[in-house]
Amino acid sequence: MLTLFQYNWQVREEWLQWCRGISASELAKERTGGMGSFRLTILHIIDVEYSWIRALMGKPDVEIDLTSYKTIDEIEDLSNKLQKENKAYLSEWLQDRENQMVYASWLNQSFTKGEIIRHIIVHEIHHIGQLSVWAREIGMKPVSANFIDRGLANE
Amino acid sequence: MLTLFQYNWQVREEWLQWCRGISASELAKERTGGMGSFRLTILHIIDVEYSWIRALMGKPDVEIDLTSYKTIDEIEDLSNKLQKENKAYLSEWLQDRENQMVYASWLNQSFTKGEIIRHIIVHEIHHIGQLSVWAREIGMKPVSANFIDRGLANE
Repeated sequence: MLTLFQYNWQVREEWLQWCRGISASELAKERTGGMGSFRLTILHIIDVEYSWIRALMGKPDVEIDLTSYKTIDEIEDLSNKLQKENKAYLSEWLQDRENQMVYASWLNQSFTKGEIIRHIIVHEIHHIGQLSVWAREIGMKPVSANFIDRGLANE
Repeated sequence: MLTLFQYNWQVREEWLQWCRGISASELAKERTGGMGSFRLTILHIIDVEYSWIRALMGKPDVEIDLTSYKTIDEIEDLSNKLQKENKAYLSEWLQDRENQMVYASWLNQSFTKGEIIRHIIVHEIHHIGQLSVWAREIGMKPVSANFIDRGLANE
């Protein structure tokens, strides 16, 4: 399962680099679907992953002020900072956590940790698919979504 | 890992039903990104999943003539038919297959079965994300991409 996070983080990093090839106004420009722009969709991916992993850790959510992250450098720093915490938790993911229940206060619902971990994985891949359409719409080649050929080990 | 296939199949079925709410011309209309239309992108998902699972099974690829599947009924029948074979294989997925090598003749490359299985999962989710942008572009609400709230067990 960890390999799918590694995939997501690799693809996210490639999209962040890809975004350096478009202007600040293209990055922020309002678009149809997703979270409405490249900038907000990438921030949303980072935010949602962190919120769920905080919930898995039994820690309260930390609200992220999206207006504070406008440039790719700022977004990348945030992503790297939060990923450190996420990695530390996920690297010791244990099979016996799968069926433990977690209460998601913002949804007032409980889920198993196994459900949540899959939800986080799927969430990022889905939004990345949206970026790929926007990339084509501005005449650019999107980042490859292939899982193969990334040297990702099986875990 | 099987749960992620179940997720993909549930979401695919919901998109097929969703497509019944748009006209045949919207279904086939050329769009930017993905495989160029709702119809071709969904067929591509079905085709790629089947090709890779045939490779995992050590069976030769079966070419699918995409021009033969124009209506949602035809696409859904194809999806259901091929899913039966895929399910039979995946339901007995064994952990010790993870590191077995498979030769993908059309790429002239070998991958582990673990890599391929993740590639198939990610492939569908990515393309479904593209459909969601197109849905918004024609003013329609896309199918939910949530993994939670689908009653999917952890496997």
